[in-house]
Amino acid sequence: MSVPDLQDINRALKLIRPFIHRTPVLTSSAINDIAGSKLFFKCENFQKAGAFKFRGASHAVITLDKTGKRKGVATHSSGNHAAALALAASIHHLPSYIVMPENAPRIKKLAVAGYGARIYYCPPTLEAREQTLHKVVQETGAVFIHPYDNVRVIAGQGTVALELLEQMPSPDIIIAPVGGGGLLSGTAIAVKKLSPHTRVIGAEPAGADDAARSFHTGQLMPSVDPHTIADGLLTSLSERTFTIIRHYVDDILTAKDETIIRAMRMIWERMKIIVEPSAAVPLAVVIENPEIFNNKTTGIILSGGNADLDHLPF
Amino acid sequence: MSVPDLQDINRALKLIRPFIHRTPVLTSSAINDIAGSKLFFKCENFQKAGAFKFRGASHAVITLDKTGKRKGVATHSSGNHAAALALAASIHHLPSYIVMPENAPRIKKLAVAGYGARIYYCPPTLEAREQTLHKVVQETGAVFIHPYDNVRVIAGQGTVALELLEQMPSPDIIIAPVGGGGLLSGTAIAVKKLSPHTRVIGAEPAGADDAARSFHTGQLMPSVDPHTIADGLLTSLSERTFTIIRHYVDDILTAKDETIIRAMRMIWERMKIIVEPSAAVPLAVVIENPEIFNNKTTGIILSGGNADLDHLPF
Repeated sequence: MSVPDLQDINRALKLIRPFIHRTPVLTSSAINDIAGSKLFFKCENFQKAGAFKFRGASHAVITLDKTGKRKGVATHSSGNHAAALALAASIHHLPSYIVMPENAPRIKKLAVAGYGARIYYCPPTLEAREQTLHKVVQETGAVFIHPYDNVRVIAGQGTVALELLEQMPSPDIIIAPVGGGGLLSGTAIAVKKLSPHTRVIGAEPAGADDAARSFHTGQLMPSVDPHTIADGLLTSLSERTFTIIRHYVDDILTAKDETIIRAMRMIWERMKIIVEPSAAVPLAVVIENPEIFNNKTTGIILSGGNADLDHLPF
Repeated sequence: MSVPDLQDINRALKLIRPFIHRTPVLTSSAINDIAGSKLFFKCENFQKAGAFKFRGASHAVITLDKTGKRKGVATHSSGNHAAALALAASIHHLPSYIVMPENAPRIKKLAVAGYGARIYYCPPTLEAREQTLHKVVQETGAVFIHPYDNVRVIAGQGTVALELLEQMPSPDIIIAPVGGGGLLSGTAIAVKKLSPHTRVIGAEPAGADDAARSFHTGQLMPSVDPHTIADGLLTSLSERTFTIIRHYVDDILTAKDETIIRAMRMIWERMKIIVEPSAAVPLAVVIENPEIFNNKTTGIILSGGNADLDHLPF
């Protein structure tokens, strides 16, 4: 099982830099006062396609071999990875095939279609998705790009931390949300090599706490029937991301949905920026654990901004 | 009747610079595609207290004489000027007295109170506001800071354009919303002196079009029973702002409320930033008048971000 190292992440940044936004780091004295902490927000909600996922997807697309570049890419996802992969494929002029559950939100379907992907609808079960994807890959010859269990995707996601460490040198803590673990894995590898004294913490919804349970028991424990407003974090760790996280991450903390919603609204109201529920989980963890973050400088990765304006949780 | 000149605006920027945010200029290729135009958004929604008003209020507070600094400042407003003046007064350690209508939104009352102002409630009529303010000024000796009919306030608002012209040299057009005309007046003075070929356009809701009517008839015509979602733009020009606008502004265009709401949502969805309805009026004007903005570079002043998340118009 291969995992990326710092060199892979550095190389990824060099390759994707012309295509991504170098997102800004914002601060809010009002939120600092509330949290009793000095927080630096890395705004991947401003990234292309609205989330950090565009980094990993771009890296995967750019590093395809010749056949892959002709045949294109495929994935199953109803979320940010689908849109990111479709956009990355379109920018590099190759076809993309996205398997989505029939009941995916209309706005997500429109985004993926708008980036020129060919969409295949399937019943909303993991089994149906995987079967449909298998058929699509067989028919088209496209390369399956997994949303997180993929070395190049992980290396791409790690570029967020490379930029953040240039923008805020030597933080005490960096905290990133964890779903499948791609972002947290890339972040942890980059941070532990470049700034070993910085603690890396994963932030997970209490209602989908497979990563926290796996981390604390030392055994990979997939999600069973997860429920959370942070719909980007429902997936479970893979063997690969679990191995990386066990090795490099200092802790995984959870937050309740009501705190996630409060944190999300705080970011909207105080910072005047739009983040999706999953992106608010790290701030929720800070709010629920003041003793850990008090008087520390903490970098927070705001993972994405694709909130559904027709169904706000507050 | 005195009006500020470029020197006053330059001086204002020097005085307020340590206290304000130099707000960023953002672009969106998605919105450019929709609008058929190259737009540069000056993000005063990120300004302290959430709107450009903090510039004028800060300038007014800093330039008070000795007595004024002891006695403090007063105004009547239910909107961004009240919060901005209260915050500016608090930063400079002087008292502020704000007259607000009893029915002002709870969130606005909390903001003003949170900045340490003393609030006086009155019935929601202009007459009651003015009477209450008169009494407060007599009792406290505080200096009345008008939200726009004030030379120092106008000079302060003009500093937005000074920064914008450094951030995007030589635009074809700069467009700012117009309510009482303080922002548009300061903008026009700065732009016409520094970049004479740049057209300055005011953007007004069709449901509160007193500035457009005044501009096109050459006669100051106050608002009568204005109705618009852009609640920061309900006020009418004063003799002072009308004189400046007639002299320096190239045109005033209006937009319908439905376009304003569409433009607001477009900014939220595509740029992932929060703007209030009034701040979306310039983009609405661009959308309704493609022939004017096509293939031009246009600077848009996003005036504020104090949207009421409990009562979204979409």
